[in-house]
Amino acid sequence: MRTATASSGPTPLPAGFRAHAGAAGLREEGDDVVVVVNDGPSPASSAVFTRSRFAGPSVVLSRENAVGGRARGVVVVAKNANVATGEQGMADAREVLEHAAAAVGAAPGEMLIASTGVIGRRYPMPLLRAHLDSVAGAAFDADAVALAGAMMTTDTRPKTATADMTTTTGGTARVVGIAKGVGMVEPDMATMIAVVFTDAAVTPGALDTAFRGAVDATFNCLSVDTDTSTSDTAIALASGVAGPVDDVELRRALEAVCLDLTLQLARDGEGATKLLTVKVTGARDRAQAKRVAKTILNSPLVKTAVHGADPNWGRVAMAIGKCQDDTDIDPERVRIVFGDLETYPAFPGDAELERLTEIMRADEVTIAVDLGVEGGGVEGGVADGACTVYGCDLSREYISINADYTT
Amino acid sequence: MRTATASSGPTPLPAGFRAHAGAAGLREEGDDVVVVVNDGPSPASSAVFTRSRFAGPSVVLSRENAVGGRARGVVVVAKNANVATGEQGMADAREVLEHAAAAVGAAPGEMLIASTGVIGRRYPMPLLRAHLDSVAGAAFDADAVALAGAMMTTDTRPKTATADMTTTTGGTARVVGIAKGVGMVEPDMATMIAVVFTDAAVTPGALDTAFRGAVDATFNCLSVDTDTSTSDTAIALASGVAGPVDDVELRRALEAVCLDLTLQLARDGEGATKLLTVKVTGARDRAQAKRVAKTILNSPLVKTAVHGADPNWGRVAMAIGKCQDDTDIDPERVRIVFGDLETYPAFPGDAELERLTEIMRADEVTIAVDLGVEGGGVEGGVADGACTVYGCDLSREYISINADYTT
Repeated sequence: MRTATASSGPTPLPAGFRAHAGAAGLREEGDDVVVVVNDGPSPASSAVFTRSRFAGPSVVLSRENAVGGRARGVVVVAKNANVATGEQGMADAREVLEHAAAAVGAAPGEMLIASTGVIGRRYPMPLLRAHLDSVAGAAFDADAVALAGAMMTTDTRPKTATADMTTTTGGTARVVGIAKGVGMVEPDMATMIAVVFTDAAVTPGALDTAFRGAVDATFNCLSVDTDTSTSDTAIALASGVAGPVDDVELRRALEAVCLDLTLQLARDGEGATKLLTVKVTGARDRAQAKRVAKTILNSPLVKTAVHGADPNWGRVAMAIGKCQDDTDIDPERVRIVFGDLETYPAFPGDAELERLTEIMRADEVTIAVDLGVEGGGVEGGVADGACTVYGCDLSREYISINADYTT
Repeated sequence: MRTATASSGPTPLPAGFRAHAGAAGLREEGDDVVVVVNDGPSPASSAVFTRSRFAGPSVVLSRENAVGGRARGVVVVAKNANVATGEQGMADAREVLEHAAAAVGAAPGEMLIASTGVIGRRYPMPLLRAHLDSVAGAAFDADAVALAGAMMTTDTRPKTATADMTTTTGGTARVVGIAKGVGMVEPDMATMIAVVFTDAAVTPGALDTAFRGAVDATFNCLSVDTDTSTSDTAIALASGVAGPVDDVELRRALEAVCLDLTLQLARDGEGATKLLTVKVTGARDRAQAKRVAKTILNSPLVKTAVHGADPNWGRVAMAIGKCQDDTDIDPERVRIVFGDLETYPAFPGDAELERLTEIMRADEVTIAVDLGVEGGGVEGGVADGACTVYGCDLSREYISINADYTT
């Protein structure tokens, strides 16, 4: 398997998929509705969704239709989340699903739907009906870049990633992923909107296992601003055209594509100027490592220090200290490293603080923390829980983007 | 009892207290060290501290000396938290405590110490030693405003509040409180630094019960930026000069002073332009109400919308949705109100959105949410858990303040 890479230039979907991106008029200019259908010989699907208590009709309907792993198509509506819109919002979502299904010759129950954008506003149904009815006769030849572009809200660029797999018969199968979402991003069990396509032949069960593992290691380790969307949806669709791949190969390729998309989402976080990676090791278990890593990643004071390249490393100690119920964290065993410079317990002098400033000026900042929690079977040994999470700095631009979003 | 009011003009401490504010040279200009001693006939104390896993030597030492409720004095050092400074930091804190105790004729074990400021830098001990030794011969006549001013870090103004109590013999006792802290503020079991003085005669036990109740309803309902300080400390000292007050009167007066200080801290939150109050009712219990209220108060997307008077009320629905483990929250029973305008499930039209913009332009914005959780004994009844929390908007100025704090 080759490593996934963000694609530049046209990126066709894997064999077995047809897609259309068009403009229904939800945004002032450009495409805003995506319709994809899987015509492959052995369609399989997997989908994970937000755990928000205010999940919208799109998530509710997709959750129903994802059961069984045989969903064949997806419709994505940009700029309007259709969330907190009451019974009418649910009826509108059903109608969008029906029109999209008719356009691609599928049953409504075989289609998934995802929407993001403003919360609390109804869909402009006349625009959506007219557009979807016109899609039936349109060319279904959009590539991944066009699809990713049509899904964007405050994203500044489309996000796609690809990876190849070797099939069990020695052939090649592909994975192509698209994603959007740069604000209201702290996915939990899912991400904003991501759709990953493959032409491998896999059972729904194998796809589901591999995809959930990949999502957990990538999208679920991403946070732009701690706010969890009502609409997070990640979907994987397999067509089967390219033949079977084994489970390890599938998981590797899916994770490579999802990680690539995750890093693109973090870099394009609203107002972001830097990618911030936090690696925690020496934790009791992965859950503790992730909790501490996310607490550092999400601290506004750590994020602003990274933004300003302020060598205020003590804020990382503060953030670790916020994990108050982790009583097995002992400050005397903790180690904090920026790039390759230990700041605690090294207690940097002026020369080291200048080096720290240089490290923090880069457009990628990595903070590594070893908690040194006792454990691991041997007395005095160190536990081996670890987790790496991805985010960005916090800038004035984030405020500007969000202080007048709907107006 | 009269309501507490932020004092303007000189605010003497209650009878029995002597205080000194002086400049050791930790800040470029102005006082930065406070020393207070309680000479009253029946000294009593209560103190609550941060739950941070990275609590500094000041918190560790004060926690020891607070046991028993008989602490007689406090030394506060501004601009340097003396946190994450290793064994030398602990030795430095002990030495500061000894010099301060000697200056007021108390035993080191009778003194509390509190420090806030940069984390990970050692105290400038030569400056602190020289200053504290000179304090012994100085006048101890500082009022509350001078003390509050000397404690400030990024605060823009000193914060004091007062309340009167009627003693059991018909006399008057006073409560005077001071506080600082406008960033790294999400206190948990304590606040940044607050010291509340009273000349009432109360037992340590009664003072402790009343003060913990007051702190829980006020400082612990405050969040500026979700970051919990390593140094949070709230102290109450009673001198006994004015005679006994009953428990209800004591609790009322302490809570009034603490609430007043809490609102001043929120209004002066780093970069804040508005006071944001979130009231949640109809929750299963107070803990659920507080969790939901804090999630709304801390959402950067809610805070930026309030900052920009963007009528994007759907973000409050999003924030409620983040409480994913509260499975008894049903979106169909939730009600969201800004000021006196219901936005959900009312689904405001254009005219109402204009009114909402007006409501959000005020310098105080109140969001009320009724969760409508079923409960309360009667079938179909609504639970009565409630909590009100206090914070502020998120502005570009917050980023500017924190992107280059130490440099």
